[in-house]
Amino acid sequence: MNKAINRQWIYAKRPEGAVGLDTFELRESTVPKPGPGEVLLRLLAVSIDPAQRAWMMTATYRPRLEPGELMPAFAIGEVVASQTPGLAVGDWVEGDFGWQDYAISTPQLVKKRDKRLPLEQLMGVLNITGLTAYFGLLEVGRPRAGETVLVSGAAGAVGCIAVQIAKIAGCRVVAVAGGAEKGKWLTETLGADAAIDYKAGNLRAALKAAAPDGIDVYFDNTGGEILENALAVMNRNGRVACCGAVAQYDGADWGAGPRGVPGVLVSKRIRMEGFIVMDFDKQRKAAERAMIRWISEGKLQAPVQVVEGLEQAPQGLIDLLAGRNFGKMMVRVA
Amino acid sequence: MNKAINRQWIYAKRPEGAVGLDTFELRESTVPKPGPGEVLLRLLAVSIDPAQRAWMMTATYRPRLEPGELMPAFAIGEVVASQTPGLAVGDWVEGDFGWQDYAISTPQLVKKRDKRLPLEQLMGVLNITGLTAYFGLLEVGRPRAGETVLVSGAAGAVGCIAVQIAKIAGCRVVAVAGGAEKGKWLTETLGADAAIDYKAGNLRAALKAAAPDGIDVYFDNTGGEILENALAVMNRNGRVACCGAVAQYDGADWGAGPRGVPGVLVSKRIRMEGFIVMDFDKQRKAAERAMIRWISEGKLQAPVQVVEGLEQAPQGLIDLLAGRNFGKMMVRVA
Repeated sequence: MNKAINRQWIYAKRPEGAVGLDTFELRESTVPKPGPGEVLLRLLAVSIDPAQRAWMMTATYRPRLEPGELMPAFAIGEVVASQTPGLAVGDWVEGDFGWQDYAISTPQLVKKRDKRLPLEQLMGVLNITGLTAYFGLLEVGRPRAGETVLVSGAAGAVGCIAVQIAKIAGCRVVAVAGGAEKGKWLTETLGADAAIDYKAGNLRAALKAAAPDGIDVYFDNTGGEILENALAVMNRNGRVACCGAVAQYDGADWGAGPRGVPGVLVSKRIRMEGFIVMDFDKQRKAAERAMIRWISEGKLQAPVQVVEGLEQAPQGLIDLLAGRNFGKMMVRVA
Repeated sequence: MNKAINRQWIYAKRPEGAVGLDTFELRESTVPKPGPGEVLLRLLAVSIDPAQRAWMMTATYRPRLEPGELMPAFAIGEVVASQTPGLAVGDWVEGDFGWQDYAISTPQLVKKRDKRLPLEQLMGVLNITGLTAYFGLLEVGRPRAGETVLVSGAAGAVGCIAVQIAKIAGCRVVAVAGGAEKGKWLTETLGADAAIDYKAGNLRAALKAAAPDGIDVYFDNTGGEILENALAVMNRNGRVACCGAVAQYDGADWGAGPRGVPGVLVSKRIRMEGFIVMDFDKQRKAAERAMIRWISEGKLQAPVQVVEGLEQAPQGLIDLLAGRNFGKMMVRVA
């Protein structure tokens, strides 16, 4: 691979229906040079996240992605040239660098990371997905020991951490994922008390059986049918931490909302609250410290599925949206 | 009217579709005698509330109403016979006494009220509907001065108080109700900054025009289409106080939920929270004091529509569910 070339995945056209390989286009250009105050980064890993699908569809917490733009992605890079005293060659930094080999950035737009930590942890549990699980569960869901916590998308990057933190918090944890293999992984490897295969049908009965005392906190990664059924099984004063809506991402239309809203929210005094991890930036250091401690104590695992090579990024996203990942998915670029 | 007879409205059959006169049946019996520890109340006023429709349909915060039961209703009565030192003849008390002339109760099941206050205020602004507006807006919605507050069902018992408290809190207030006459009343008499007739169509455009800076707090009395459109116009960190879902009450099926949930909650970090006024019992005294002060200062009006005679109670509920009331609706019984 000629490293004088910068490969970039361009968002080429808005998908009609599911994301396909033709949603993207690989473009090659020369490696840019940093100007005054800038650094050149060689990217080590770029992220694959369900949110990338949402960015294509509509304005979210960022403007809608338009064809022709570089595919945005969270990433970690190493400084290979610096025109600023704020960063030195060899430093590892994270930021929104996109699906490419090299990126130009500035100290203001990046966050320096500790090179002694494993790249896989820096990309997952100690980053957006892990922090999303941490803050969404603990600050939005606010579970108390002994309560029952439901996590959907439980085998995903966020879900697999939320499951484990809910166990650390002393809760009974019910994990929803697609397929028996994921269920086995969630209970046997990650410690969930029960797993539900949402593809197996009869979701309502399965939820009632897995949560005989009802659900107190629902960490919602999916929306849709799972949310609707969870609301029916939730206890009074239940809390729904709305983290994402994967069920709504990979399609052209958002479709119907969960039946019973808002009636069931009133009768059971349920709080549904959307959140974005960026809103908790001030508490990030403390969260990272807690998670590093849990990892060192053997209480928290950081599952990562590595896609090898930038050229595989689109297929990685297709696989992720089809639910084929176990844990965090990242692309190793260099 | 022979007051030795106790007339009772019995919930006779579950309505298929809208509530009709045949949903109820008037039964006459002799006036009961209080046993040891009990009092006999002659009811002065009984309440008509949208929630009564919900009670017929499903278990809410109370078990589902079954045919053959006395129609439950909040009411105020005067003690006419007492077998307990806790209450004396002449005392006014409130409680869930139902649609009838007389009720037996005990000191534990009632709350004594101040006879010097007008019956209309005791039934409305200083009671469940007024307190619902107070707590729902201030404790759940938490508006800050300068923010925009949207209130649906704004001409109803709860809505008309929420509109006024939002003005007292220093907010721009947009009131949604059915028909131009209600809109005129809400802006000219109750002080709303803008009114929207939800029957006039093009709700989204009307909301955007009436709330050019977006909506920060939505006090939701209706659910349904208004909720869906409000979510689209809400600002980041918006709050929806879910008070009721009138749109879902008078029909057999709850139907679809608001599109965009939970996706829009995530992207805009919106909190939707159901509440029930009973959960705020400990703060009730302070709320009543605040509202009595606002009334005395001329800042808060207490609109009440009085239905004369217990025999008119079913028609009153039908009118209320059809949206024909301005403010709190109560039946004067004696």
